[in-house]
Amino acid sequence: MPEITPRTFKGTRDYLPQDMRLREKIFDTMKSVFKNFGFAPLETPAMEFLEILAGKYGEDADKLLYPLAYKGGKELALRYDLTVPLARVVAMNPHMPKPFKRFQIQPVWRADNPQLKRGRYREFYQCDVDTVGTSEPLADAEIISLMVTVFEELGLGNCAVHLNSRKVLSGMIQGAGFSQSDVPEVCRSIDKLDKEGVKGVKSELVEKGYGSDIIENICGLLENKKTGIEGIDFLRKSIDNLPELSEGLEELSEILEILDEMSVPKEKVVFDFTLARGLDYYTGSVYEVILPDFPELGSVAGGGRYDDLVGLFMKESIPAVGTSFGMERIFTLLKARQERENILHNDIDFLVCNFDREFRADYLGLLSEMRKTDIRCEMYFRPDKMKKQFTYANKKNIPFVVIIGSDEKDNNCIKIKDMISGKQDTVKTGDFIDYAKNLVKEFQKG
Amino acid sequence: MPEITPRTFKGTRDYLPQDMRLREKIFDTMKSVFKNFGFAPLETPAMEFLEILAGKYGEDADKLLYPLAYKGGKELALRYDLTVPLARVVAMNPHMPKPFKRFQIQPVWRADNPQLKRGRYREFYQCDVDTVGTSEPLADAEIISLMVTVFEELGLGNCAVHLNSRKVLSGMIQGAGFSQSDVPEVCRSIDKLDKEGVKGVKSELVEKGYGSDIIENICGLLENKKTGIEGIDFLRKSIDNLPELSEGLEELSEILEILDEMSVPKEKVVFDFTLARGLDYYTGSVYEVILPDFPELGSVAGGGRYDDLVGLFMKESIPAVGTSFGMERIFTLLKARQERENILHNDIDFLVCNFDREFRADYLGLLSEMRKTDIRCEMYFRPDKMKKQFTYANKKNIPFVVIIGSDEKDNNCIKIKDMISGKQDTVKTGDFIDYAKNLVKEFQKG
Repeated sequence: MPEITPRTFKGTRDYLPQDMRLREKIFDTMKSVFKNFGFAPLETPAMEFLEILAGKYGEDADKLLYPLAYKGGKELALRYDLTVPLARVVAMNPHMPKPFKRFQIQPVWRADNPQLKRGRYREFYQCDVDTVGTSEPLADAEIISLMVTVFEELGLGNCAVHLNSRKVLSGMIQGAGFSQSDVPEVCRSIDKLDKEGVKGVKSELVEKGYGSDIIENICGLLENKKTGIEGIDFLRKSIDNLPELSEGLEELSEILEILDEMSVPKEKVVFDFTLARGLDYYTGSVYEVILPDFPELGSVAGGGRYDDLVGLFMKESIPAVGTSFGMERIFTLLKARQERENILHNDIDFLVCNFDREFRADYLGLLSEMRKTDIRCEMYFRPDKMKKQFTYANKKNIPFVVIIGSDEKDNNCIKIKDMISGKQDTVKTGDFIDYAKNLVKEFQKG
Repeated sequence: MPEITPRTFKGTRDYLPQDMRLREKIFDTMKSVFKNFGFAPLETPAMEFLEILAGKYGEDADKLLYPLAYKGGKELALRYDLTVPLARVVAMNPHMPKPFKRFQIQPVWRADNPQLKRGRYREFYQCDVDTVGTSEPLADAEIISLMVTVFEELGLGNCAVHLNSRKVLSGMIQGAGFSQSDVPEVCRSIDKLDKEGVKGVKSELVEKGYGSDIIENICGLLENKKTGIEGIDFLRKSIDNLPELSEGLEELSEILEILDEMSVPKEKVVFDFTLARGLDYYTGSVYEVILPDFPELGSVAGGGRYDDLVGLFMKESIPAVGTSFGMERIFTLLKARQERENILHNDIDFLVCNFDREFRADYLGLLSEMRKTDIRCEMYFRPDKMKKQFTYANKKNIPFVVIIGSDEKDNNCIKIKDMISGKQDTVKTGDFIDYAKNLVKEFQKG
């Protein structure tokens, strides 16, 4: 067979154990918060019918789908996100009690131009949390409270939720003189404000062919970006009374009041009338989480209310609200922190050294006992020199090794070496398991 | 937009919360055992280059790949299993300490004819555990001991590992008069013994065009299936001394001896010289786990030693041994047991009832406190009649509801209703969290 170069497709990655440990920790933390908030797990297939996915994400997104070669590439594609599959699941299970509160953690695929340095991949995990079947602002507030809790639990408590409403935006845009049908297009341009600045937004709107006066109007608002109560006052003053705008502002006030009753610190949630979010399907609140200590990351979570999408596959309209965590950004950030703090991670607590075929039954007996008490351990695979086995333990970050030789056998005891301090200790064989459990406990505490 | 029928591709499934809970429990149990045995987590991308996957699984398997439409369907395909990706990872990371012990739990895709009743899907999870970089029989034994432990922990302790060696099989086949190059082909036929019987194997071998005398020889051995020591004696007697056969038998004896030293009960591991396993790449031990209480399921886990596959992408040969758990079969089995035993599963422990807008701050304050202490809870989304809220709690299997009305407010207390017994209790507001924690603990005990 000719030699094949082992490689992965650009924009996809292997997660080796050192990365997996941290990823599992992040997912476990998130899941625990999701469950405390009453959300239940869901998984859907990687492949969906093309007609289910097409046309749901705005005009550019269809090009980013990965169709399968199956049936000429016209039938199936890999999932693009977790929101459209959720809408499909809700439609296919009409008897499910509502509100349906679910979380979903699975990879999605996008035929994008990968930019690995900026964290843009072709395969990446999404972590979504959504409440389907209620238009109560309580549901919006609950998602925001959940986001704040997740970042606290991840040790990223210094976070700010930027909050706006598509109704407010629509009011602003129409107040500036655009027609209602222009709103989605203008929202997509405003969404680029963070990256391109007001100048960029302006030139994009010019390119799209809108009148220069209405462009000036909307850019005037964007230039005067004000947040919080000040922003609300500014909008009320700047724009003629539009029912949609007032409705949006009222809903946001209600959400902020509920968050206060939920003991979410006031400074963590900021009304920001320039926040747009790119996707077409939002209909009410939109929000994003920013980490002020890492502004270069952009948003690390975000979502909003989308009251029309879920009903696309049904005869009735179903309100929904949710968020998506930017797992890859969060992972990159926490990995860098781990490296900075030089945190040692180990998959194995004990290595049982292997010196002599004659003692194999002793080694194996001990190994079985340790495994029964949830001590993660392995045995060196064949009798070898002590030095070589210590080198192996160090390479694998194993903190403790167990030494049983003829001396230990004769005295019915076991020698334990701490690979970090270099200290050795000897305990009676019968006391070993308790001693080892304690060592692991102390080690895990740091 | 025209209405689109919501549906999933045949052979793929949504896992709704009631299934996900059990699946998470199974995966958590497995992972905990894998970690105790010193295995570390790995994940690889869904898409691999076609040239990496093609030609690795035997002649029929290439047709079962799912290529992506990308670049005319000639470049990428969805992963078919987790073993070839492992070989690629090992080749791409030559400095990883060896033996490399990894587990991997991810879906794989096969363009098969789905047979949902027999548990054959186009998308399904594989759970693989492999040790790469040692040919010591200790590694084979460790995998077998791990399989036995997993089934014990899953409450399926009545399991039997059938054990054979490709060297023994090769010896048997060559001893019967086949040439060495016939061995893989004949193995594939013997692999069908369980389903087709000796008659089926015989007619397949006739179809493949082998001589009738050598077919009679091998079928004679299969007809005289003997297990354990009896099987070893029978083979030694029936077949002229072939070095490969003796080597295989010796290795198996060594594995059995190690398993004994690992305290794996003797009756749980049975030498079975008719066990073949379908895949081409095995070179040494092969094994399968059978649950005697559920013989119709076939094997629920299985694997073996494959010393040539990992080296395919490298300049050196790398020995490896591992197993794959049949997650979908295990899931189906445990789900049926759950239903039989009428086990109630709940995602939420408490529903906070919502009677009056005026008390919202009290409801929300309590909710936040509960969530902080890991009590899974939610609040009914809008003020409504008590009956309706109880119905909702029952539909979602929520065991406890919290009632705060004006009486409770006035007396600074909280009412709790047990939805299963119907019993109500009232506690002081300050005592509620401890009381609730205790209720949940008792409830989880069953």
